[in-house]
Amino acid sequence: MSPLKLRDPDAIHCHLRDVERLLSRQRLIENLVQRQPMPQHQLVEHITHRQNLARLRRKLEQLHAADIACILEALPLADRHVVWDLVRADQDGDILLEVSDAVRETLIGTMDADELRAAAKRLDADELADLAPDLPPEVMREVLEALDQEEREHVRAAMSYPEGTVGALMDFDLVQVREDVSLEVVLRYLRRFDALPDHTDKLFVVDRQAHLRGVLTLEALLINDPEVTVATVMQQKTVLSFAPEDAADGAANLFERYDLVSVPVIDSEQRVIGRLTVADVVDYLRETSEAEILNQAGLREEEDIFAPILQSLKNRWAWLAINLVTAFIASRVIGLFEGTIEKLVALAALMPIVAGIGGNAGNQTITMIVRAIAMGQVQPTALWRLLRKELGVALINGIIWGNVIGLLAWWLYDNLKLGLVMVAAMTLNLLLAATAGVTIPLIRQRFGRDPALGGSVLITALTDAGGFLIFLGLATLVLL
Amino acid sequence: MSPLKLRDPDAIHCHLRDVERLLSRQRLIENLVQRQPMPQHQLVEHITHRQNLARLRRKLEQLHAADIACILEALPLADRHVVWDLVRADQDGDILLEVSDAVRETLIGTMDADELRAAAKRLDADELADLAPDLPPEVMREVLEALDQEEREHVRAAMSYPEGTVGALMDFDLVQVREDVSLEVVLRYLRRFDALPDHTDKLFVVDRQAHLRGVLTLEALLINDPEVTVATVMQQKTVLSFAPEDAADGAANLFERYDLVSVPVIDSEQRVIGRLTVADVVDYLRETSEAEILNQAGLREEEDIFAPILQSLKNRWAWLAINLVTAFIASRVIGLFEGTIEKLVALAALMPIVAGIGGNAGNQTITMIVRAIAMGQVQPTALWRLLRKELGVALINGIIWGNVIGLLAWWLYDNLKLGLVMVAAMTLNLLLAATAGVTIPLIRQRFGRDPALGGSVLITALTDAGGFLIFLGLATLVLL
Repeated sequence: MSPLKLRDPDAIHCHLRDVERLLSRQRLIENLVQRQPMPQHQLVEHITHRQNLARLRRKLEQLHAADIACILEALPLADRHVVWDLVRADQDGDILLEVSDAVRETLIGTMDADELRAAAKRLDADELADLAPDLPPEVMREVLEALDQEEREHVRAAMSYPEGTVGALMDFDLVQVREDVSLEVVLRYLRRFDALPDHTDKLFVVDRQAHLRGVLTLEALLINDPEVTVATVMQQKTVLSFAPEDAADGAANLFERYDLVSVPVIDSEQRVIGRLTVADVVDYLRETSEAEILNQAGLREEEDIFAPILQSLKNRWAWLAINLVTAFIASRVIGLFEGTIEKLVALAALMPIVAGIGGNAGNQTITMIVRAIAMGQVQPTALWRLLRKELGVALINGIIWGNVIGLLAWWLYDNLKLGLVMVAAMTLNLLLAATAGVTIPLIRQRFGRDPALGGSVLITALTDAGGFLIFLGLATLVLL
Repeated sequence: MSPLKLRDPDAIHCHLRDVERLLSRQRLIENLVQRQPMPQHQLVEHITHRQNLARLRRKLEQLHAADIACILEALPLADRHVVWDLVRADQDGDILLEVSDAVRETLIGTMDADELRAAAKRLDADELADLAPDLPPEVMREVLEALDQEEREHVRAAMSYPEGTVGALMDFDLVQVREDVSLEVVLRYLRRFDALPDHTDKLFVVDRQAHLRGVLTLEALLINDPEVTVATVMQQKTVLSFAPEDAADGAANLFERYDLVSVPVIDSEQRVIGRLTVADVVDYLRETSEAEILNQAGLREEEDIFAPILQSLKNRWAWLAINLVTAFIASRVIGLFEGTIEKLVALAALMPIVAGIGGNAGNQTITMIVRAIAMGQVQPTALWRLLRKELGVALINGIIWGNVIGLLAWWLYDNLKLGLVMVAAMTLNLLLAATAGVTIPLIRQRFGRDPALGGSVLITALTDAGGFLIFLGLATLVLL
């Protein structure tokens, strides 16, 4: 036996290297075919060409859908289409689910209605609901019509919950048992399955009306005497369940806090309607943390790194435009003091330091507060305590770093007053940064908004314009 | 039955509100006791005081260790110590494992050697290894001496692997079976357990020398005829396993890509030595993505929001100092052109726009490249293709946004040449940003370094100093 090991360096890169090797050989062959028009050569190359494609196809057949998705994302468009054409049709649906939105678009663009229908038909209801927004409406309608009544309801249900709720993440793969039977009966019942749903760590115990009565963990099923009834060993008191309209963030927090694998989702009458698994939650967490990092850098969404230039521009322009507006405002603040700068040009050289350090410190504060809010550690009432602390930090930082830079300015320009203005301006801008860093997220939270959204832009804009205003204003008052 | 539901708003805040209510009543009572020195009153208050504490203790007893950890992190120091004193001693160890490093320090600081020893003794080997760095060495020595030979080996093994490896995350809770027995025998064997290890979704099939032969999923155990042997239904061909020295990042990627719950960890001779579970991986992912977000904002580590000011300063000073140095360099670049600015003071107002937009675009590029590298989508050979694309994006952005700002500058200062310098400087700085955004992470990757580390600081420093240099340099050449 040779178990698949991580130390195989290609496993972690989803076997990308093998595929790239076959693809580059493919390109080489195609170049030869084009350059050598002699018929006998053509024939030979044609065979090599087909042999190589067959080898690539065999390689792809051995791979997990998630690996193929990872390969497709890493390939430039031309190669991506070669690989996509070679993938077994019965894997199409799974792969479409795994790739990023941007790459999914490029793949669906190459498929005709028949292929899309075939791919969609192989998916579960919750998966189909995920894919639905990207499918042409007429394909989706036909696929829905081909489903049975119950499945169609499931798809409709899954699509009816907005993004960011438990309902949008849940699946419908349930194993339900009654509480009055013995474990032996449950064991016999399970042997009639060809497979259990992924991530089955517990069975849901329901009554005849599908009301949740408790959960039977596989552990309880396995370690207890088969003669006892489900009711004796099921968990009942501390069963965690979600409603489909619950926030996915909250659910993810609980999965992480209690190390959960699967949780039942129930309706308002305690009837089990679905199930949330750790796999859904991990994907969700990865996506939201990605989104957070991307947004912080001013990207709207994950980018297909091989996307055409126009698409990249679309992904990035909004943020650049906002940044230009705030930079322009800051520039106009400087404009107000052109008379002052004309008289003492050293101010122009020193002012970016004041603005920069304020933005930096403000971002430290706001990041810390936003993280603490996200983890439920901050009540809106904590405002004053946190503000007092952050102002203390800002004051000490202002005095220490302000003096360092103030001394440098004094020494460079041989102007003591300029140095003192520098110390005062840096301290005041740091105090402004701390105030904004604490109040912006807490006020947003109090009004029920996302405390993180756009905080970094806002605080940088404030400390830039504010820094210039404070520094040049003080300079005008003191130095002229 | 009333299953615990997420809609209980307090569940998601780890029941913080209940505890805070009891604590504030506690503070009220203590205030009364202090203000009213009459003996009969004191007695009454003393009783109320104790009743309230007892209520708080009962509330805490009902909570999961992870909930108490979350509450402790959300409380200011004085309240934190009140709650920590009330927690049942047998939960101490689990809670210490759950809280953040900063909060763990404050809790351990209040415990004496006996309490620490008692808490540590209740932990598993892998948990003890996690806690070890924070325990006083003499406590750790005594705890190790009290362990049996095998457990001591486990602790030593877990401590010997550096952070960021599979070995540092794995646990030692294994259920192993032989391949030549029937499933019935396995079922009988499991009934002798009081509990299965957390996240047991598969049993490890080993030979007499503990070599991994395959894995038996609980699913296979449950759906197959109990008469068949383990060998018939175990997975053998595609068993994924890790070595303890494998990188945790890679392992986490595979957990996510294949939706894994547990994976065996084997030594160089294929002997099973431990197990990695999805719970460890989720914690690891959360921690590293936290760290990434914190580092991006210039915080060294997660901060206890109620930490004393001095500790916060320590967490933040390094980044502020680096920022000051780069800001100072940029300031000196401006200093070179003081003569130019003196003659045309409008330059002082416009120059931050050039620098700012460059930093912004550079951060977009570097973030995208770093994410793509982390997901294994970028080979170092992709340098030229990516560079060409990013330069294209930068050129178009420069022409569009440069012209917008250039026109504004022309209109504001009635100086066409100034407008043209603005367009040229913005385009050039965006090209610089794109070049640096692609090359910095790819070069770091080629030399085996972390492509993400410090990239944002470096690129902002480059586009600030570079932007001032390009803009003021062009202005000196063209306008004077």
